[in-house]
Amino acid sequence: MNIERHLAVLDLNARYAEAIDDGRFEEWPDFFTEDGRYRVTTAENVAQNLPLSLIYATSRAMLRDRVKSLREANIYEAQRYRHMLGPARIEADGDGALRVRTSFMVARVMHTGETTLFATGSYRDRVVLDGATARLAERTVILDSRQIDTLLAIPL
Amino acid sequence: MNIERHLAVLDLNARYAEAIDDGRFEEWPDFFTEDGRYRVTTAENVAQNLPLSLIYATSRAMLRDRVKSLREANIYEAQRYRHMLGPARIEADGDGALRVRTSFMVARVMHTGETTLFATGSYRDRVVLDGATARLAERTVILDSRQIDTLLAIPL
Amino acid sequence: MNIERHLAVLDLNARYAEAIDDGRFEEWPDFFTEDGRYRVTTAENVAQNLPLSLIYATSRAMLRDRVKSLREANIYEAQRYRHMLGPARIEADGDGALRVRTSFMVARVMHTGETTLFATGSYRDRVVLDGATARLAERTVILDSRQIDTLLAIPL
Repeated sequence: MNIERHLAVLDLNARYAEAIDDGRFEEWPDFFTEDGRYRVTTAENVAQNLPLSLIYATSRAMLRDRVKSLREANIYEAQRYRHMLGPARIEADGDGALRVRTSFMVARVMHTGETTLFATGSYRDRVVLDGATARLAERTVILDSRQIDTLLAIPL
Repeated sequence: MNIERHLAVLDLNARYAEAIDDGRFEEWPDFFTEDGRYRVTTAENVAQNLPLSLIYATSRAMLRDRVKSLREANIYEAQRYRHMLGPARIEADGDGALRVRTSFMVARVMHTGETTLFATGSYRDRVVLDGATARLAERTVILDSRQIDTLLAIPL
Repeated sequence: MNIERHLAVLDLNARYAEAIDDGRFEEWPDFFTEDGRYRVTTAENVAQNLPLSLIYATSRAMLRDRVKSLREANIYEAQRYRHMLGPARIEADGDGALRVRTSFMVARVMHTGETTLFATGSYRDRVVLDGATARLAERTVILDSRQIDTLLAIPL
């Protein structure tokens, strides 16, 4: 294992969670490569080999559009999130890209102060290194729950 | 501190959680040594020095039997788990075995999608190294809660 | 990045959480320097640049007094806590002190066994090294929720 690559991945995960939890959603697309893919699906779909996605974006530009619409719809304003990530497990480290897998729990805190365990699941990522900076060429968010309603709103 | 031993312990914890969270329960006994012990108790019992265990298995074979019965009873089918582990704290590193302690939170996601914080506590482990692979010679799961009902069903 | 300093910070966070989760509150002031500051505020206050604190202590002696009063009031007795901490992000490493930031989730387990997600937020710390031991010159606890009632009771 290459320690520097590993640390770059840990740093990516930490900064990604921090930006969302701080409400700096406009920074979110920058964690991806220019043609990075972001997909949200469920463990049930994955188990049944269904290609269904709840969200599927194939470029940084699409992610920027998404953030813009959500800002205009005021989706983010009344709530905060808190991500807890497990250790990043590097599953394969080929030339150019690393396959990484990370468990997560996300809590949602409403404006009223009510705190709930909002989402759990895992990230399956393809990470590329741009110098010392790691970026997501692909992040597939696999939700443990099939209950998806408002989940669609926020970057996970 | 020996960095390689430490990394082997982190890897053990990550793979253990991942196998359970993926529903690969049949792999669970393999994280233990042949005569590995698995014990579940409560913080209350520990504080009162009570030797009571909710579960006590003293070999990999017993763990395999346990998984088999639970599969036959369809206990696992309708729910998923998500483990979040804290840092593995190596408390002692004697010849042959490491004493390790790790905090955990486990969420349970029902088939309906309902997500709850299911269990919290800590692992107290005795870990041995089999080449580069760390295995549990003993894992004592100390639950923060005394409320135990369905907790007995799943590997924690 | 200096690996040894980083490991000392990780160790501080792990021991801090462990002492509270074990109910060893009397050890809590020792994680601070003699004139260490402990402050609890909310993300809302921080966003609005309000200097309001829910708790503000400016020495180890004040923290000791606090623990003593809470013990006398029996605040701690009927409940347990479980901290899960994210990775410690070292934001700056100047001469003498490190600026560190860490996300957390805290679960509360009542005597009845009821478990709830009690608090989420982040620590913003100033950490100094006393030989190999890291201590808090300052810990600001920024709560995601504005709902504060019983939060005031326990060390976060």
